[in-house]
Amino acid sequence: MADIKLFEKDPYAPIKYVYEIDQVLYRGKSPYQEFAVVTNPFFGRMLILDGVVQFTERDEFYYHEMLAHVVLHAMPAPKTVVVIGGGDGGVIREVLKHPTVEKAYLVDIDSEVTRVSREYFPTVSCGLSDPRVVEAPMDGAVFMKEFEGKADAILVDSTDIVGFAKSLFTAEFFNNASAILGDKGVFVTLSESMHFHLPMVREVQKTLRMAFPAVDLYTAPIATYPGNWWCFAVGSKGGTDVRAPARPSVTPTRYYCTDIHKGCFLPRYLYDRMMEDGRESM
Amino acid sequence: MADIKLFEKDPYAPIKYVYEIDQVLYRGKSPYQEFAVVTNPFFGRMLILDGVVQFTERDEFYYHEMLAHVVLHAMPAPKTVVVIGGGDGGVIREVLKHPTVEKAYLVDIDSEVTRVSREYFPTVSCGLSDPRVVEAPMDGAVFMKEFEGKADAILVDSTDIVGFAKSLFTAEFFNNASAILGDKGVFVTLSESMHFHLPMVREVQKTLRMAFPAVDLYTAPIATYPGNWWCFAVGSKGGTDVRAPARPSVTPTRYYCTDIHKGCFLPRYLYDRMMEDGRESM
Repeated sequence: MADIKLFEKDPYAPIKYVYEIDQVLYRGKSPYQEFAVVTNPFFGRMLILDGVVQFTERDEFYYHEMLAHVVLHAMPAPKTVVVIGGGDGGVIREVLKHPTVEKAYLVDIDSEVTRVSREYFPTVSCGLSDPRVVEAPMDGAVFMKEFEGKADAILVDSTDIVGFAKSLFTAEFFNNASAILGDKGVFVTLSESMHFHLPMVREVQKTLRMAFPAVDLYTAPIATYPGNWWCFAVGSKGGTDVRAPARPSVTPTRYYCTDIHKGCFLPRYLYDRMMEDGRESM
Repeated sequence: MADIKLFEKDPYAPIKYVYEIDQVLYRGKSPYQEFAVVTNPFFGRMLILDGVVQFTERDEFYYHEMLAHVVLHAMPAPKTVVVIGGGDGGVIREVLKHPTVEKAYLVDIDSEVTRVSREYFPTVSCGLSDPRVVEAPMDGAVFMKEFEGKADAILVDSTDIVGFAKSLFTAEFFNNASAILGDKGVFVTLSESMHFHLPMVREVQKTLRMAFPAVDLYTAPIATYPGNWWCFAVGSKGGTDVRAPARPSVTPTRYYCTDIHKGCFLPRYLYDRMMEDGRESM
Protein backbone atom coordinates (compact mmCIF):
# COMPACT_ATOMS: atom_id res chain seq x y z
CA MET A 1 0.00 0.00 0.00
CA ALA A 2 3.07 2.20 -0.31
CA ASP A 3 1.43 3.85 -3.31
CA ILE A 4 -1.42 5.46 -1.39
CA LYS A 5 -0.64 8.73 0.27
CA LEU A 6 -2.63 11.38 1.99
CA PHE A 7 -2.65 14.80 0.41
CA GLU A 8 -4.29 18.08 1.19
CA LYS A 9 -7.97 18.30 0.24
CA ASP A 10 -8.56 19.79 -3.20
CA PRO A 11 -12.23 20.10 -4.11
CA TYR A 12 -11.26 20.98 -7.66
CA ALA A 13 -9.57 17.66 -8.37
CA PRO A 14 -10.31 14.72 -6.08
CA ILE A 15 -7.50 12.71 -7.64
CA LYS A 16 -4.05 14.24 -7.61
CA TYR A 17 -2.11 13.55 -10.78
CA VAL A 18 1.62 13.21 -10.20
CA TYR A 19 4.11 13.31 -13.07
CA GLU A 20 7.69 12.24 -13.24
CA ILE A 21 9.86 15.11 -14.44
CA ASP A 22 13.09 14.58 -16.32
CA GLN A 23 14.09 18.17 -16.86
CA VAL A 24 12.87 21.64 -16.00
CA LEU A 25 13.53 23.59 -19.20
CA TYR A 26 12.13 26.92 -18.08
CA ARG A 27 10.65 28.64 -15.07
CA GLY A 28 9.39 32.19 -15.07
CA LYS A 29 6.63 34.58 -14.14
CA SER A 30 4.38 36.97 -15.98
CA PRO A 31 2.07 39.55 -14.38
CA TYR A 32 -0.65 36.91 -14.62
CA GLN A 33 0.81 33.52 -13.88
CA GLU A 34 3.79 31.35 -13.03
CA PHE A 35 5.31 29.37 -15.89
CA ALA A 36 7.12 26.08 -16.05
CA VAL A 37 8.16 24.04 -19.06
CA VAL A 38 9.22 20.54 -18.06
CA THR A 39 9.79 17.21 -19.77
CA ASN A 40 8.19 13.91 -18.92
CA PRO A 41 9.33 10.58 -20.42
CA PHE A 42 5.83 9.73 -21.67
CA PHE A 43 4.24 13.10 -22.47
CA GLY A 44 7.31 14.94 -23.73
CA ARG A 45 7.34 18.67 -23.05
CA MET A 46 4.62 20.01 -20.79
CA LEU A 47 3.45 23.59 -20.26
CA ILE A 48 2.48 24.23 -16.65
CA LEU A 49 0.80 27.46 -15.54
CA ASP A 50 0.28 28.13 -11.83
CA GLY A 51 1.00 24.45 -11.17
CA VAL A 52 -1.67 23.21 -13.59
CA VAL A 53 -0.79 21.23 -16.73
CA GLN A 54 -2.05 23.22 -19.73
CA PHE A 55 -0.97 20.75 -22.38
CA THR A 56 1.70 18.22 -23.28
CA GLU A 57 3.38 17.55 -26.60
CA ARG A 58 1.97 14.05 -26.66
CA ASP A 59 -1.71 14.71 -26.12
CA GLU A 60 -2.36 18.40 -26.87
CA PHE A 61 -4.04 17.56 -30.17
CA TYR A 62 -7.11 16.06 -28.48
CA TYR A 63 -7.97 19.34 -26.82
CA HIS A 64 -6.90 21.72 -29.59
CA GLU A 65 -8.60 19.73 -32.36
CA MET A 66 -11.81 19.32 -30.41
CA LEU A 67 -12.04 22.96 -29.37
CA ALA A 68 -11.61 24.14 -32.95
CA HIS A 69 -13.04 21.55 -35.29
CA VAL A 70 -16.46 20.67 -33.94
CA VAL A 71 -17.97 24.13 -34.28
CA LEU A 72 -16.01 25.04 -37.41
CA HIS A 73 -17.11 21.87 -39.22
CA ALA A 74 -20.72 22.65 -38.34
CA MET A 75 -20.40 25.64 -40.69
CA PRO A 76 -19.96 25.37 -44.46
CA ALA A 77 -17.44 28.22 -44.75
CA PRO A 78 -16.24 30.01 -41.59
CA LYS A 79 -14.27 33.13 -42.45
CA THR A 80 -13.62 35.12 -39.28
CA VAL A 81 -12.72 33.33 -36.07
CA VAL A 82 -11.94 34.79 -32.66
CA VAL A 83 -9.82 32.76 -30.23
CA ILE A 84 -9.92 34.01 -26.64
CA GLY A 85 -6.94 32.74 -24.64
CA GLY A 86 -4.98 30.12 -26.52
CA GLY A 87 -1.83 32.23 -26.73
CA ASP A 88 0.19 29.07 -27.21
CA GLY A 89 -1.20 28.78 -30.74
CA GLY A 90 -2.60 25.24 -30.53
CA VAL A 91 -6.17 26.22 -31.38
CA ILE A 92 -5.01 28.69 -34.04
CA ARG A 93 -3.03 25.90 -35.72
CA GLU A 94 -6.27 23.91 -36.07
CA VAL A 95 -8.38 26.91 -37.14
CA LEU A 96 -5.98 27.62 -39.99
CA LYS A 97 -6.58 24.15 -41.43
CA HIS A 98 -9.96 25.45 -42.61
CA PRO A 99 -9.27 26.91 -46.06
CA THR A 100 -12.12 29.42 -45.89
CA VAL A 101 -10.72 31.16 -42.81
CA GLU A 102 -9.54 34.65 -43.73
CA LYS A 103 -8.86 36.13 -40.31
CA ALA A 104 -8.18 34.59 -36.91
CA TYR A 105 -7.95 36.91 -33.93
CA LEU A 106 -5.81 35.65 -31.07
CA VAL A 107 -6.80 37.43 -27.86
CA ASP A 108 -4.66 36.25 -24.96
CA ILE A 109 -4.21 38.54 -21.96
CA ASP A 110 -0.73 37.15 -21.38
CA SER A 111 1.64 37.54 -24.31
CA GLU A 112 4.25 35.63 -22.33
CA VAL A 113 2.29 32.44 -23.16
CA THR A 114 2.94 33.12 -26.83
CA ARG A 115 6.63 33.85 -26.29
CA VAL A 116 7.15 30.66 -24.28
CA SER A 117 5.19 28.57 -26.78
CA ARG A 118 7.22 29.93 -29.70
CA GLU A 119 10.43 29.05 -27.87
CA TYR A 120 9.58 25.64 -26.41
CA PHE A 121 6.61 24.27 -28.39
CA PRO A 122 7.29 24.80 -32.10
CA THR A 123 4.76 22.13 -33.13
CA VAL A 124 2.04 23.97 -31.20
CA SER A 125 2.91 27.56 -32.05
CA CYS A 126 3.66 26.83 -35.71
CA GLY A 127 0.60 28.68 -37.04
CA LEU A 128 1.20 31.94 -35.20
CA SER A 129 3.17 33.57 -38.00
CA ASP A 130 0.46 32.92 -40.57
CA PRO A 131 -0.64 36.23 -42.14
CA ARG A 132 -4.29 35.47 -41.32
CA VAL A 133 -3.55 35.68 -37.58
CA VAL A 134 -4.17 38.99 -35.79
CA GLU A 135 -2.64 38.99 -32.33
CA ALA A 136 -4.53 41.12 -29.79
CA PRO A 137 -2.76 40.73 -26.45
CA MET A 138 -5.50 41.98 -24.13
CA ASP A 139 -8.19 40.91 -21.68
CA GLY A 140 -10.65 38.71 -23.56
CA ALA A 141 -13.60 40.18 -21.66
CA VAL A 142 -12.61 43.71 -22.72
CA PHE A 143 -12.03 42.61 -26.31
CA MET A 144 -15.46 41.04 -26.42
CA LYS A 145 -17.09 44.23 -25.14
CA GLU A 146 -15.24 46.58 -27.48
CA PHE A 147 -14.86 44.59 -30.69
CA GLU A 148 -16.85 46.21 -33.46
CA GLY A 149 -16.52 43.57 -36.14
CA LYS A 150 -18.44 40.35 -36.71
CA ALA A 151 -17.25 36.79 -36.33
CA ASP A 152 -18.43 33.37 -37.49
CA ALA A 153 -17.03 31.53 -34.52
CA ILE A 154 -15.68 32.38 -31.08
CA LEU A 155 -13.49 29.76 -29.40
CA VAL A 156 -12.55 30.25 -25.75
CA ASP A 157 -9.36 28.45 -24.77
CA SER A 158 -8.80 29.77 -21.28
CA THR A 159 -7.28 28.37 -18.13
CA ASP A 160 -9.64 26.68 -15.66
CA ILE A 161 -12.70 28.54 -14.38
CA VAL A 162 -10.90 29.94 -11.36
CA GLY A 163 -8.93 33.15 -10.81
CA PHE A 164 -8.68 35.67 -13.64
CA ALA A 165 -10.32 33.39 -16.20
CA LYS A 166 -13.67 33.72 -14.37
CA SER A 167 -14.54 36.86 -16.36
CA LEU A 168 -14.76 34.61 -19.44
CA PHE A 169 -17.66 32.64 -17.95
CA THR A 170 -20.15 35.39 -17.06
CA ALA A 171 -23.53 36.12 -18.66
CA GLU A 172 -22.12 39.52 -19.67
CA PHE A 173 -19.23 37.91 -21.54
CA PHE A 174 -21.53 35.42 -23.24
CA ASN A 175 -23.91 38.23 -24.25
CA ASN A 176 -21.08 40.25 -25.72
CA ALA A 177 -19.96 37.17 -27.63
CA SER A 178 -23.48 36.65 -28.90
CA ALA A 179 -23.61 40.25 -30.15
CA ILE A 180 -20.52 39.67 -32.30
CA LEU A 181 -21.88 36.52 -33.91
CA GLY A 182 -24.32 36.45 -36.78
CA ASP A 183 -27.38 34.20 -36.82
CA LYS A 184 -25.25 31.27 -37.92
CA GLY A 185 -22.39 32.00 -35.55
CA VAL A 186 -21.27 29.59 -32.88
CA PHE A 187 -19.54 30.08 -29.53
CA VAL A 188 -17.62 27.37 -27.70
CA THR A 189 -15.77 27.28 -24.41
CA LEU A 190 -14.20 24.63 -22.21
CA SER A 191 -16.32 23.66 -19.23
CA GLU A 192 -14.26 21.29 -17.10
CA SER A 193 -14.84 17.59 -16.35
CA MET A 194 -18.02 15.51 -16.33
CA HIS A 195 -16.45 13.30 -13.67
CA PHE A 196 -15.13 15.92 -11.27
CA HIS A 197 -17.02 19.17 -11.86
CA LEU A 198 -20.60 18.34 -12.71
CA PRO A 199 -22.11 21.34 -10.89
CA MET A 200 -19.71 23.63 -12.77
CA VAL A 201 -20.56 22.01 -16.10
CA ARG A 202 -24.25 22.58 -15.36
CA GLU A 203 -23.62 26.17 -14.27
CA VAL A 204 -21.87 27.02 -17.54
CA GLN A 205 -24.80 25.56 -19.49
CA LYS A 206 -27.26 27.64 -17.47
CA THR A 207 -25.27 30.83 -17.87
CA LEU A 208 -24.88 30.26 -21.60
CA ARG A 209 -28.67 30.00 -21.89
CA MET A 210 -28.91 33.61 -20.77
CA ALA A 211 -27.18 34.62 -23.99
CA PHE A 212 -27.87 31.90 -26.55
CA PRO A 213 -31.14 30.23 -27.56
CA ALA A 214 -29.39 26.93 -28.37
CA VAL A 215 -26.93 25.47 -25.89
CA ASP A 216 -25.23 22.09 -26.01
CA LEU A 217 -22.33 20.07 -24.67
CA TYR A 218 -19.74 17.74 -26.15
CA THR A 219 -16.84 15.91 -24.60
CA ALA A 220 -13.39 14.55 -25.37
CA PRO A 221 -10.99 12.26 -23.51
CA ILE A 222 -7.93 14.21 -22.33
CA ALA A 223 -5.46 12.30 -20.19
CA THR A 224 -3.80 15.25 -18.50
CA TYR A 225 -6.85 17.26 -17.44
CA PRO A 226 -8.36 16.35 -14.07
CA GLY A 227 -11.30 14.05 -14.56
CA ASN A 228 -10.29 13.52 -18.19
CA TRP A 229 -13.81 13.35 -19.54
CA TRP A 230 -13.53 16.94 -20.67
CA CYS A 231 -16.45 19.20 -21.57
CA PHE A 232 -16.95 21.83 -24.22
CA ALA A 233 -20.00 24.09 -23.92
CA VAL A 234 -21.55 25.44 -27.11
CA GLY A 235 -23.89 28.37 -27.63
CA SER A 236 -25.55 29.29 -30.91
CA LYS A 237 -28.50 31.22 -32.21
CA GLY A 238 -30.16 28.33 -33.94
CA GLY A 239 -28.92 29.05 -37.47
CA THR A 240 -26.35 26.27 -37.27
CA ASP A 241 -26.96 22.68 -36.18
CA VAL A 242 -23.76 22.15 -34.22
CA ARG A 243 -24.28 18.40 -33.94
CA ALA A 244 -24.20 17.95 -37.72
CA PRO A 245 -20.93 18.22 -39.65
CA ALA A 246 -21.57 20.43 -42.70
CA ARG A 247 -18.61 19.11 -44.72
CA PRO A 248 -15.85 16.46 -44.66
CA SER A 249 -13.08 16.80 -42.10
CA VAL A 250 -10.10 18.99 -42.85
CA THR A 251 -6.78 17.18 -42.94
CA PRO A 252 -4.61 16.22 -41.24
CA THR A 253 -6.23 15.48 -37.89
CA ARG A 254 -5.23 12.89 -35.32
CA TYR A 255 -8.49 12.57 -33.36
CA TYR A 256 -11.26 14.72 -34.83
CA CYS A 257 -13.14 13.07 -37.67
CA THR A 258 -16.73 13.10 -38.87
CA ASP A 259 -17.70 10.12 -36.72
CA ILE A 260 -16.17 11.69 -33.62
CA HIS A 261 -18.18 14.83 -34.37
CA LYS A 262 -21.40 12.83 -34.57
CA GLY A 263 -20.62 10.85 -31.43
CA CYS A 264 -19.07 13.48 -29.13
CA PHE A 265 -22.22 15.29 -28.01
CA LEU A 266 -23.71 14.20 -24.73
CA PRO A 267 -26.75 12.00 -25.45
CA ARG A 268 -30.02 13.66 -24.43
CA TYR A 269 -30.57 11.02 -21.75
CA LEU A 270 -27.31 11.95 -20.03
CA TYR A 271 -27.70 15.65 -20.73
CA ASP A 272 -31.04 15.75 -18.96
CA ARG A 273 -29.63 13.87 -15.95
CA MET A 274 -26.63 16.17 -15.83
CA MET A 275 -28.85 19.25 -15.76
CA GLU A 276 -30.90 18.12 -12.74
CA ASP A 277 -30.46 20.62 -9.94
CA GLY A 278 -28.28 19.40 -7.13
CA ARG A 279 -26.88 16.41 -8.99
CA GLU A 280 -23.19 15.91 -8.20
CA SER A 281 -22.65 12.67 -10.10
CA MET A 282 -24.31 10.94 -13.03
CA MET B 1 5.56 24.13 -8.00
CA ALA B 2 5.26 22.26 -4.74
CA ASP B 3 2.70 19.99 -6.41
CA ILE B 4 5.15 18.35 -8.78
CA LYS B 5 7.11 15.46 -7.38
CA LEU B 6 9.38 12.82 -8.77
CA PHE B 7 8.22 9.25 -8.49
CA GLU B 8 9.61 5.92 -9.60
CA LYS B 9 9.12 5.14 -13.28
CA ASP B 10 6.00 3.12 -14.03
CA PRO B 11 5.61 2.23 -17.71
CA TYR B 12 2.09 0.99 -17.01
CA ALA B 13 0.77 4.36 -15.85
CA PRO B 14 2.75 7.47 -16.76
CA ILE B 15 0.60 9.56 -14.44
CA LYS B 16 0.41 8.50 -10.82
CA TYR B 17 -3.06 8.97 -9.36
CA VAL B 18 -3.01 9.86 -5.68
CA TYR B 19 -6.12 9.65 -3.52
CA GLU B 20 -6.89 11.14 -0.18
CA ILE B 21 -7.98 8.42 2.23
CA ASP B 22 -10.31 9.06 5.14
CA GLN B 23 -10.53 5.57 6.56
CA VAL B 24 -9.07 2.16 5.94
CA LEU B 25 -12.06 -0.13 6.52
CA TYR B 26 -10.36 -3.41 5.74
CA ARG B 27 -7.00 -4.86 4.83
CA GLY B 28 -6.39 -8.51 4.08
CA LYS B 29 -4.82 -11.06 1.80
CA SER B 30 -6.06 -13.96 -0.29
CA PRO B 31 -3.86 -16.54 -2.02
CA TYR B 32 -4.10 -14.31 -5.11
CA GLN B 33 -3.97 -10.70 -4.05
CA GLU B 34 -3.78 -8.07 -1.34
CA PHE B 35 -7.04 -6.36 -0.40
CA ALA B 36 -7.85 -2.92 0.89
CA VAL B 37 -11.20 -1.22 1.32
CA VAL B 38 -10.78 2.51 1.96
CA THR B 39 -12.95 5.59 1.89
CA ASN B 40 -12.32 8.77 -0.07
CA PRO B 41 -14.36 11.96 0.43
CA PHE B 42 -15.27 12.17 -3.27
CA PHE B 43 -15.43 8.57 -4.45
CA GLY B 44 -16.82 6.95 -1.31
CA ARG B 45 -15.69 3.41 -0.66
CA MET B 46 -12.96 2.05 -2.91
CA LEU B 47 -11.84 -1.53 -3.51
CA ILE B 48 -8.09 -1.77 -4.00
CA LEU B 49 -6.37 -5.00 -5.08
CA ASP B 50 -2.57 -5.19 -5.09
CA GLY B 51 -2.47 -1.40 -4.82
CA VAL B 52 -4.68 -0.85 -7.89
CA VAL B 53 -8.12 0.77 -7.65
CA GLN B 54 -10.69 -1.76 -8.92
CA PHE B 55 -13.73 0.41 -8.48
CA THR B 56 -15.26 3.11 -6.31
CA GLU B 57 -18.82 3.51 -5.10
CA ARG B 58 -19.14 6.75 -7.00
CA ASP B 59 -18.06 5.73 -10.46
CA GLU B 60 -18.25 1.93 -10.66
CA PHE B 61 -21.39 2.08 -12.78
CA TYR B 62 -19.54 3.41 -15.84
CA TYR B 63 -17.39 0.32 -16.05
CA HIS B 64 -19.96 -2.26 -14.97
CA GLU B 65 -22.72 -0.93 -17.21
CA MET B 66 -20.46 -0.65 -20.22
CA LEU B 67 -18.93 -4.10 -19.83
CA ALA B 68 -22.38 -5.72 -19.63
CA HIS B 69 -24.82 -3.67 -21.64
CA VAL B 70 -23.18 -3.04 -24.99
CA VAL B 71 -22.88 -6.68 -26.02
CA LEU B 72 -26.10 -7.76 -24.31
CA HIS B 73 -28.14 -5.04 -26.03
CA ALA B 74 -26.72 -6.13 -29.39
CA MET B 75 -28.70 -9.36 -28.89
CA PRO B 76 -32.49 -9.56 -28.91
CA ALA B 77 -32.74 -12.09 -26.08
CA PRO B 78 -29.56 -13.25 -24.30
CA LYS B 79 -30.26 -16.21 -22.01
CA THR B 80 -26.97 -17.65 -20.75
CA VAL B 81 -24.15 -15.32 -19.77
CA VAL B 82 -20.70 -16.17 -18.43
CA VAL B 83 -18.83 -13.58 -16.37
CA ILE B 84 -15.13 -14.30 -15.91
CA GLY B 85 -13.69 -12.42 -12.94
CA GLY B 86 -16.13 -9.85 -11.59
CA GLY B 87 -16.46 -11.58 -8.22
CA ASP B 88 -17.59 -8.28 -6.72
CA GLY B 89 -20.92 -8.67 -8.51
CA GLY B 90 -20.98 -5.33 -10.34
CA VAL B 91 -21.25 -6.87 -13.81
CA ILE B 92 -23.69 -9.52 -12.61
CA ARG B 93 -25.94 -6.77 -11.23
CA GLU B 94 -26.13 -5.27 -14.72
CA VAL B 95 -26.54 -8.62 -16.50
CA LEU B 96 -29.57 -9.41 -14.35
CA LYS B 97 -31.34 -6.28 -15.58
CA HIS B 98 -31.92 -8.15 -18.85
CA PRO B 99 -35.21 -9.98 -18.34
CA THR B 100 -34.38 -12.78 -20.80
CA VAL B 101 -31.30 -13.88 -18.84
CA GLU B 102 -31.92 -17.29 -17.28
CA LYS B 103 -28.47 -18.17 -16.04
CA ALA B 104 -25.40 -16.10 -15.22
CA TYR B 105 -22.18 -17.93 -14.35
CA LEU B 106 -19.80 -16.03 -12.12
CA VAL B 107 -16.29 -17.44 -12.50
CA ASP B 108 -13.85 -15.63 -10.24
CA ILE B 109 -10.68 -17.39 -9.17
CA ASP B 110 -10.71 -15.51 -5.87
CA SER B 111 -13.86 -16.01 -3.78
CA GLU B 112 -12.45 -13.54 -1.28
CA VAL B 113 -13.42 -10.77 -3.74
CA THR B 114 -17.04 -11.87 -3.40
CA ARG B 115 -16.87 -12.05 0.38
CA VAL B 116 -15.36 -8.57 0.68
CA SER B 117 -17.84 -7.12 -1.80
CA ARG B 118 -20.80 -8.61 0.06
CA GLU B 119 -19.51 -7.10 3.29
CA TYR B 120 -18.40 -3.64 2.12
CA PHE B 121 -20.14 -2.95 -1.19
CA PRO B 122 -23.81 -3.90 -0.86
CA THR B 123 -24.85 -1.74 -3.82
CA VAL B 124 -22.37 -3.60 -6.03
CA SER B 125 -22.87 -7.15 -4.75
CA CYS B 126 -26.66 -6.86 -4.52
CA GLY B 127 -27.34 -9.24 -7.41
CA LEU B 128 -25.21 -12.10 -6.16
CA SER B 129 -28.01 -13.85 -4.30
CA ASP B 130 -30.27 -13.92 -7.34
CA PRO B 131 -31.26 -17.53 -8.13
CA ARG B 132 -30.11 -17.11 -11.73
CA VAL B 133 -26.49 -16.70 -10.58
CA VAL B 134 -24.23 -19.77 -10.55
CA GLU B 135 -21.02 -19.10 -8.67
CA ALA B 136 -18.03 -21.07 -9.94
CA PRO B 137 -15.01 -20.00 -7.91
CA MET B 138 -12.22 -21.24 -10.17
CA ASP B 139 -9.60 -20.17 -12.71
CA GLY B 140 -11.43 -18.59 -15.65
CA ALA B 141 -9.00 -20.12 -18.14
CA VAL B 142 -9.72 -23.62 -16.79
CA PHE B 143 -13.47 -22.98 -16.74
CA MET B 144 -13.35 -21.87 -20.35
CA LYS B 145 -11.48 -25.03 -21.38
CA GLU B 146 -13.72 -27.44 -19.49
CA PHE B 147 -17.18 -25.88 -19.72
CA GLU B 148 -19.45 -28.13 -21.77
CA GLY B 149 -22.47 -25.86 -22.10
CA LYS B 150 -23.20 -23.02 -24.49
CA ALA B 151 -23.42 -19.31 -23.78
CA ASP B 152 -24.83 -16.27 -25.54
CA ALA B 153 -22.30 -13.86 -24.10
CA ILE B 154 -18.98 -14.05 -22.28
CA LEU B 155 -17.93 -10.97 -20.31
CA VAL B 156 -14.40 -10.81 -18.93
CA ASP B 157 -14.07 -8.51 -15.94
CA SER B 158 -10.53 -9.25 -14.81
CA THR B 159 -7.79 -7.26 -13.19
CA ASP B 160 -5.28 -5.55 -15.47
CA ILE B 161 -3.42 -7.56 -18.10
CA VAL B 162 -0.48 -8.30 -15.82
CA GLY B 163 0.22 -11.14 -13.38
CA PHE B 164 -2.28 -13.96 -13.08
CA ALA B 165 -4.89 -12.29 -15.29
CA LYS B 166 -2.63 -12.78 -18.34
CA SER B 167 -4.09 -16.24 -18.96
CA LEU B 168 -7.37 -14.49 -19.81
CA PHE B 169 -5.79 -12.71 -22.79
CA THR B 170 -4.26 -15.59 -24.76
CA ALA B 171 -5.33 -16.96 -28.15
CA GLU B 172 -6.06 -20.26 -26.40
CA PHE B 173 -8.47 -18.59 -23.99
CA PHE B 174 -10.16 -16.66 -26.78
CA ASN B 175 -10.51 -19.86 -28.83
CA ASN B 176 -12.06 -21.71 -25.91
CA ALA B 177 -14.47 -18.80 -25.46
CA SER B 178 -15.35 -18.89 -29.13
CA ALA B 179 -16.11 -22.62 -28.89
CA ILE B 180 -18.68 -21.98 -26.16
CA LEU B 181 -20.49 -19.28 -28.09
CA GLY B 182 -23.02 -19.92 -30.82
CA ASP B 183 -22.96 -18.11 -34.17
CA LYS B 184 -24.66 -15.12 -32.59
CA GLY B 185 -22.60 -15.14 -29.42
CA VAL B 186 -20.41 -12.24 -28.36
CA PHE B 187 -17.27 -12.05 -26.24
CA VAL B 188 -16.05 -8.89 -24.53
CA THR B 189 -13.04 -8.13 -22.37
CA LEU B 190 -11.43 -5.02 -20.96
CA SER B 191 -8.33 -3.90 -22.85
CA GLU B 192 -6.81 -1.02 -20.92
CA SER B 193 -6.45 2.65 -21.93
CA MET B 194 -6.29 4.30 -25.35
CA HIS B 195 -4.14 7.03 -23.83
CA PHE B 196 -1.63 4.96 -21.90
CA HIS B 197 -1.56 1.45 -23.37
CA LEU B 198 -2.05 1.71 -27.10
CA PRO B 199 0.31 -1.19 -27.99
CA MET B 200 -1.56 -3.40 -25.49
CA VAL B 201 -4.94 -2.38 -26.91
CA ARG B 202 -3.69 -3.30 -30.39
CA GLU B 203 -2.23 -6.58 -29.15
CA VAL B 204 -5.57 -7.66 -27.66
CA GLN B 205 -7.32 -6.86 -30.96
CA LYS B 206 -4.77 -8.93 -32.88
CA THR B 207 -4.99 -11.88 -30.51
CA LEU B 208 -8.78 -11.79 -30.62
CA ARG B 209 -8.63 -12.04 -34.42
CA MET B 210 -7.03 -15.46 -34.03
CA ALA B 211 -10.29 -16.69 -32.52
CA PHE B 212 -13.07 -14.47 -33.86
CA PRO B 213 -13.87 -13.38 -37.42
CA ALA B 214 -15.29 -10.03 -36.24
CA VAL B 215 -13.34 -7.93 -33.76
CA ASP B 216 -14.10 -4.41 -32.57
CA LEU B 217 -13.39 -1.88 -29.85
CA TYR B 218 -15.46 0.52 -27.79
CA THR B 219 -14.52 2.89 -25.01
CA ALA B 220 -15.89 4.55 -21.89
CA PRO B 221 -14.63 7.36 -19.65
CA ILE B 222 -13.61 5.99 -16.25
CA ALA B 223 -12.06 8.48 -13.84
CA THR B 224 -10.22 6.02 -11.62
CA TYR B 225 -8.55 3.81 -14.22
CA PRO B 226 -5.16 4.98 -15.46
CA GLY B 227 -5.55 6.81 -18.74
CA ASN B 228 -9.33 6.94 -18.23
CA TRP B 229 -10.24 6.49 -21.86
CA TRP B 230 -10.94 2.84 -21.20
CA CYS B 231 -11.18 0.13 -23.87
CA PHE B 232 -13.40 -2.89 -24.27
CA ALA B 233 -12.44 -5.44 -26.92
CA VAL B 234 -15.22 -7.40 -28.60
CA GLY B 235 -15.07 -10.65 -30.55
CA SER B 236 -17.97 -12.22 -32.39
CA LYS B 237 -18.64 -14.68 -35.17
CA GLY B 238 -20.50 -12.28 -37.39
CA GLY B 239 -24.03 -13.32 -36.46
CA THR B 240 -24.51 -10.24 -34.29
CA ASP B 241 -23.81 -6.65 -35.29
CA VAL B 242 -22.36 -5.45 -32.01
CA ARG B 243 -22.47 -1.78 -33.00
CA ALA B 244 -26.26 -1.86 -33.39
CA PRO B 245 -28.55 -1.99 -30.34
CA ALA B 246 -31.19 -4.67 -30.99
CA ARG B 247 -33.71 -3.26 -28.48
CA PRO B 248 -34.33 -0.33 -26.13
CA SER B 249 -32.10 0.05 -23.08
CA VAL B 250 -32.94 -1.84 -19.92
CA THR B 251 -33.65 0.34 -16.91
CA PRO B 252 -32.38 1.76 -14.72
CA THR B 253 -28.99 2.76 -16.06
CA ARG B 254 -26.90 5.79 -15.18
CA TYR B 255 -24.59 5.97 -18.20
CA TYR B 256 -25.44 3.31 -20.78
CA CYS B 257 -28.21 4.31 -23.17
CA THR B 258 -28.94 3.67 -26.84
CA ASP B 259 -27.07 6.77 -27.97
CA ILE B 260 -24.02 5.85 -25.91
CA HIS B 261 -24.12 2.41 -27.54
CA LYS B 262 -24.15 3.96 -31.01
CA GLY B 263 -21.41 6.44 -30.16
CA CYS B 264 -19.01 4.38 -28.05
CA PHE B 265 -17.30 2.36 -30.77
CA LEU B 266 -14.01 3.70 -32.03
CA PRO B 267 -14.62 5.38 -35.41
CA ARG B 268 -12.98 3.48 -38.26
CA TYR B 269 -10.61 6.38 -38.90
CA LEU B 270 -9.21 6.11 -35.38
CA TYR B 271 -9.39 2.33 -35.32
CA ASP B 272 -7.21 2.07 -38.40
CA ARG B 273 -4.66 4.52 -36.95
CA MET B 274 -4.63 2.65 -33.66
CA MET B 275 -3.90 -0.66 -35.41
CA GLU B 276 -0.81 0.63 -37.26
CA ASP B 277 2.21 -1.39 -36.18
CA GLY B 278 4.56 0.48 -33.90
CA ARG B 279 2.17 3.34 -33.14
CA GLU B 280 2.42 4.39 -29.49
CA SER B 281 0.08 7.38 -29.63
CA MET B 282 -2.82 8.47 -31.82
